Amino acid sequence: MTVKRVLTCIAMAATLGMGSAAADQPFETEIEARQGQFKLLAFNLGPLVGMARGDIEYDADTAQASADNIAAIASLQQDRLWPAGSDSESVSGTRALPEIWEDTDDVMAKFEDLRQAALAMQEAAGTGLDGVRGQLRTLGGACSSCHDAYRESQ
Amino acid sequence: MTVKRVLTCIAMAATLGMGSAAADQPFETEIEARQGQFKLLAFNLGPLVGMARGDIEYDADTAQASADNIAAIASLQQDRLWPAGSDSESVSGTRALPEIWEDTDDVMAKFEDLRQAALAMQEAAGTGLDGVRGQLRTLGGACSSCHDAYRESQ
Repeated sequence: MTVKRVLTCIAMAATLGMGSAAADQPFETEIEARQGQFKLLAFNLGPLVGMARGDIEYDADTAQASADNIAAIASLQQDRLWPAGSDSESVSGTRALPEIWEDTDDVMAKFEDLRQAALAMQEAAGTGLDGVRGQLRTLGGACSSCHDAYRESQ
Repeated sequence: MTVKRVLTCIAMAATLGMGSAAADQPFETEIEARQGQFKLLAFNLGPLVGMARGDIEYDADTAQASADNIAAIASLQQDRLWPAGSDSESVSGTRALPEIWEDTDDVMAKFEDLRQAALAMQEAAGTGLDGVRGQLRTLGGACSSCHDAYRESQ
């Protein structure tokens, strides 16, 4: 590893991670990062839903790994991901409604509900299919609760 | 929250998270989820790089929050994100070289190096600018080490 390569990597990270100044349109960096977060969440929810529905066989290791990932993602600190002005009426490429910034306390309370539901799933997922099924409704409800109020319909 | 809405959310998550069967092209779901992971990593690396360079003022809370997020993301379990056949020679939309699947142990060892560097940054980031600067080279090195070997050049 040369010093030059480390600096190249760091410069690239700065471009990707420093926010909208380096992006093609306002808040593109933030929007892509938060969409990445929700894609990771959905990706890890997938096996739990598949097992609960009987589409795939229950596997304790996969269930636990998925639930661990969901708990970690739902625990990420959100502040920098949601800058004012990055809503669906102000910029393209996002379904985040302006109402998010009108009642941020409610949004963050709903995100905390998601985190608590994720932690409960983390406790239950490895214990058996009943554990997954028992927590999935709460977890899915936390997801819907925020989407219904703060995400633009497709 | 109606039962119907919960089921709608869960069905959506299943579509997004169940893997390539529901996607437009092979491994689209996995590729989008892992790219989301790296976008989140870069996004959280941004403030640390900006502070280290002097582009933005050091702020302990922001540094700590960014480092906490990086540590959480670098600790995510990776198994389902990297299915065989989701390489840059087999499918479009990814720069993940086929070599990843030729020496998976090495890739995972490099990912563990990233996790260790992220945990060290998590310890240091809130202690001052010297702490950030001291750990950033190791963290950036872990990033470059894998990119140099396993990511297609642009």
